[in-house]
Amino acid sequence: MVDLPRCRLSTWADVDGWADAVAAQVRERSAVPSTIVGLTRGGWVPARLLADRLGVKRIVSLRAQHWGVTATPTGDAQLTEGLSGTVEGLHVLVVDDITDTGDSLALAVAHVRDARPARVESATFLHITHSKFAPTYFAEEIPRDRWVWVVFPWNYWEDLTALALRAVEVGQGIDRVRATLRDRCGLDVPRADLERLARYVPFG
Amino acid sequence: MVDLPRCRLSTWADVDGWADAVAAQVRERSAVPSTIVGLTRGGWVPARLLADRLGVKRIVSLRAQHWGVTATPTGDAQLTEGLSGTVEGLHVLVVDDITDTGDSLALAVAHVRDARPARVESATFLHITHSKFAPTYFAEEIPRDRWVWVVFPWNYWEDLTALALRAVEVGQGIDRVRATLRDRCGLDVPRADLERLARYVPFG
Repeated sequence: MVDLPRCRLSTWADVDGWADAVAAQVRERSAVPSTIVGLTRGGWVPARLLADRLGVKRIVSLRAQHWGVTATPTGDAQLTEGLSGTVEGLHVLVVDDITDTGDSLALAVAHVRDARPARVESATFLHITHSKFAPTYFAEEIPRDRWVWVVFPWNYWEDLTALALRAVEVGQGIDRVRATLRDRCGLDVPRADLERLARYVPFG
Repeated sequence: MVDLPRCRLSTWADVDGWADAVAAQVRERSAVPSTIVGLTRGGWVPARLLADRLGVKRIVSLRAQHWGVTATPTGDAQLTEGLSGTVEGLHVLVVDDITDTGDSLALAVAHVRDARPARVESATFLHITHSKFAPTYFAEEIPRDRWVWVVFPWNYWEDLTALALRAVEVGQGIDRVRATLRDRCGLDVPRADLERLARYVPFG
């Protein structure tokens, strides 16, 4: 059975709304942090958007490498590169796009704590209830029994590539792939996007 | 005279279009890099979007600190923190949002070269012709005599804050500030955005 999960395509308007919601929670419940730590790769856009809304000038990168594949609810996370700047004595907000298993964010927060900040909080745009780790702030919760693979605007082409390569196993050709993505994943992909993908990825 | 430059508000649709254009140039003229270096803070979103379009799994951060203020065409750039990961022997694409003076990107590329990559290229979404340094790839050129301050979606609130605090010097109150931003900067700012800003920033 080909793994073609139900997906939810998110838009930039969703993203801006999530950033607004998280920033409002931070301002309401806490002081504004002095440094935002963005996890690679999913946390970079959320980190930048939260920095803008909170007026935080310093963003620091932390590499969290998932040893899994797109669109599986499981898969271990492992930190392979450290913080790109010091956080010692600082109030830090660690940011990722989503807590799915929660492994990445849990590892990241533990890693940041080892670097002796004055205070660590965490934030994601989305939080799936079965996650082992709950972020301090999140914009929207997805109940476990309504798990979907969220396609973010900064991961659209990668997700589409991964999904299309699986859909090919169900049936070849752009139109067949498109129908499979619609029926199995709930994704309505413009034909032009699949034509563009077909230039680099063989699924025709 | 209060410094209120002509501005151009960019949208997420602009951003996606720029990312598409730069990614197409990279694929046409070069091999796909193995690592993308995103400059803080302006380069993080472009870096993430190019990584998605080019299928690049590894993004590395490089901190480039501008010692200037929002919306001035001049101002020195200085690298204050190094690369968050190694680039030795790799094909690297260094990414920022815009080359204005060109100082940040020139410094960043020189810094990356010192880390002995196999190959270094650079990319920005926008390139202003008076820039001292031209990136290898850019989506759109702005001629020097049509210089504008580009407000990116990831810098909207910071830019709006900086501009509104200057507009207050022309005349106080949300409606007056709004009119000043429209007349002097060419920015049509929703009143709700200024009301939101007024909760944190005093310009009423």
